[in-house]
Amino acid sequence: MITVEEAKHIILSNTQDFGTEEIPFLKSVGRILKEDIIADRDFPPFNRVAMDGIAINYRFFQYGVRDFKIEGIQPAGSPQETMDNAANCYEVMTGAVLPNNCDTVIRYEDVSINTLMATVNLDEITEGQNIHTQGSDKTEGTVLIEKNKQISPADIGVLATVGKATLKVAKLPKVMIVSTGDELVDVNETPETHQIRRSNVYTLVSLLNELKIPSETAHITDDKAVLKEKIAGFLHQYDVLLFSGAVSKGKFDYLPEVLDELGVEKLFHRVAQRPGKPFWMGTTDNCKVFAFPGNPVSTFVNCLVYFYPWYHKSVELDEHQRTATLMEEVNFKPELTYFLQVKLHTENGQLLATPIKGNGSGDLASLVEANGFIALPKTTETTFGKGSVYPVICY
Amino acid sequence: MITVEEAKHIILSNTQDFGTEEIPFLKSVGRILKEDIIADRDFPPFNRVAMDGIAINYRFFQYGVRDFKIEGIQPAGSPQETMDNAANCYEVMTGAVLPNNCDTVIRYEDVSINTLMATVNLDEITEGQNIHTQGSDKTEGTVLIEKNKQISPADIGVLATVGKATLKVAKLPKVMIVSTGDELVDVNETPETHQIRRSNVYTLVSLLNELKIPSETAHITDDKAVLKEKIAGFLHQYDVLLFSGAVSKGKFDYLPEVLDELGVEKLFHRVAQRPGKPFWMGTTDNCKVFAFPGNPVSTFVNCLVYFYPWYHKSVELDEHQRTATLMEEVNFKPELTYFLQVKLHTENGQLLATPIKGNGSGDLASLVEANGFIALPKTTETTFGKGSVYPVICY
Repeated sequence: MITVEEAKHIILSNTQDFGTEEIPFLKSVGRILKEDIIADRDFPPFNRVAMDGIAINYRFFQYGVRDFKIEGIQPAGSPQETMDNAANCYEVMTGAVLPNNCDTVIRYEDVSINTLMATVNLDEITEGQNIHTQGSDKTEGTVLIEKNKQISPADIGVLATVGKATLKVAKLPKVMIVSTGDELVDVNETPETHQIRRSNVYTLVSLLNELKIPSETAHITDDKAVLKEKIAGFLHQYDVLLFSGAVSKGKFDYLPEVLDELGVEKLFHRVAQRPGKPFWMGTTDNCKVFAFPGNPVSTFVNCLVYFYPWYHKSVELDEHQRTATLMEEVNFKPELTYFLQVKLHTENGQLLATPIKGNGSGDLASLVEANGFIALPKTTETTFGKGSVYPVICY
Repeated sequence: MITVEEAKHIILSNTQDFGTEEIPFLKSVGRILKEDIIADRDFPPFNRVAMDGIAINYRFFQYGVRDFKIEGIQPAGSPQETMDNAANCYEVMTGAVLPNNCDTVIRYEDVSINTLMATVNLDEITEGQNIHTQGSDKTEGTVLIEKNKQISPADIGVLATVGKATLKVAKLPKVMIVSTGDELVDVNETPETHQIRRSNVYTLVSLLNELKIPSETAHITDDKAVLKEKIAGFLHQYDVLLFSGAVSKGKFDYLPEVLDELGVEKLFHRVAQRPGKPFWMGTTDNCKVFAFPGNPVSTFVNCLVYFYPWYHKSVELDEHQRTATLMEEVNFKPELTYFLQVKLHTENGQLLATPIKGNGSGDLASLVEANGFIALPKTTETTFGKGSVYPVICY
């Protein structure tokens, strides 16, 4: 049995390249950018008026002039005007090009306008004020967004501004999610007393959707021949197979055996963790197989702890480990990494993790009350003190 | 000019009820649940075997029996078996119903199996161990998920388990996002020197998508008659109009005037904040109008500070204010609430906010480097100390 750290190391050494594709920029939020986004012109592209008001030549204000004849108007979206007489002023609108011969903008709030004359009601102004100077944010050719970033709504504005109507992103893996277990019936069926409805595959579909990864689902009965035939097909059609169940020590837990017979190289089986100890991981040349234990909490946390980082590393996205303060003492004896369900919230600038009393790995309902897991490390200590800080996974 | 708190109070007193609709459960992540989700049976629905191994009657172990004849096998998904001889054992699989006459499960790891006999290699076991007792997580009729919660992947598992193939969620508002400003050309056009590409509407589309709200976009030229005609139509067709631009003091900032003429009741105009001071908000009987200032950072932060909470309150979702520690001293003179762009990360259980040097409200590119805003309160103090804690908005 390997440790969580060893399992993670193996998984992160077995990433996959899904290639790239071009997609419309408005559909790119959440996807991973695969090209640097370059400023196609200066930002802003001209000396941009930053306040509605009048534009003057500062020299004249400095000489004591306060009354300026209005020579014209420069709206946003019009080609640059030229002020013929430098002692005059121009009315200028936010977003407009600063007219030639002007270098300073005074906002309407500080000016009285009397037909064709503007009087400045200030004794002091700063040369160049209220002008968003050409190139002052970024100059042409600058990298505005570096590749390998997850695209956010803020990026969308930049992409629009530089005219990237389509852009290069990481392709999404083709994923099949398979449930096993003869006790399972579908959501719209009424289970017999000894049956339950399939839920893990749908949880996994949703967890992958959070990464923008679409997926397909299948159910295979606990029959070795059927399992083998179906999985043989899936291994060729998909980049990733996610299983839930059939990896433990049960008589009908055929999965490790079947995967072995199909030539899937086992990377590991069983991890020193709770929940999710029987996790099995394997690979072929073109397909990764994550076989999660079938208990709902096991499947859920294993997807977050292993599949998420594997996908992020595969698309070259940096991950930042968050940490939180444990709000209650926890006693845990087994020498295993313990992913404890917690409710995370911030208070006074601190991220706090309050344990949720769950009923073990089969307790699906407790996942709903929690919104994260705190990772208590594998150690010979059995007490994890209130106030200690540990890594957390939020969901 | 009202304060941010006053503006928020007014907005949250003007929420809207969009009604409810039924949707398939797999499409419900991110939507707001509008019915309590009830356990349709006990959780688990039977005394569920929690480990692969053998099931015995504890009494016999207590009497000193260690060798148990294997009477049969109870796979997951089969109707409950009955063990005829209470001195025997049954092989049982995780997820199976515990057979009648059994009350304790011993995992395979602690048992030697020799053809038809199982020998327990333990001196001590606990009565009832490795059984996930019927109803021990939740009993039939319990509320598993309360309404008015944003549905997460963990909820999807519960919805599947209780057979909620479709469920009641809050309907989404019909939203139109309108840009104004004659300097704007579209993303796939090449702007003239004095022009820039439209970006705010697309940022807003993306920000609303994060709330699962679809939206439409339009651009209206700075022509009062055209504005009036188009907006008159929009006011009848949509629940919400979001504008970007034309609310300041410019000669062509017709929006407040036009909205007034169309009978939109002004709730406020101008908020003591930076960026986004000229924010205008109004309402008709059936439509809310958020008219954000046109600078990219203003539009962005105003959507997060005002539209997001308004929507959440409208669908009755509780919001939790996060706070973070300011990592650098900030000097800011104006008596305004200052939404400062920051990079948020956790370290040692603390949420830390490092200011990003932006270039004011027009600096779209700086939004990309930040991932949040820290709200420095309106005060006569001009220094905000390193280490102080303030509310933050993450994006």
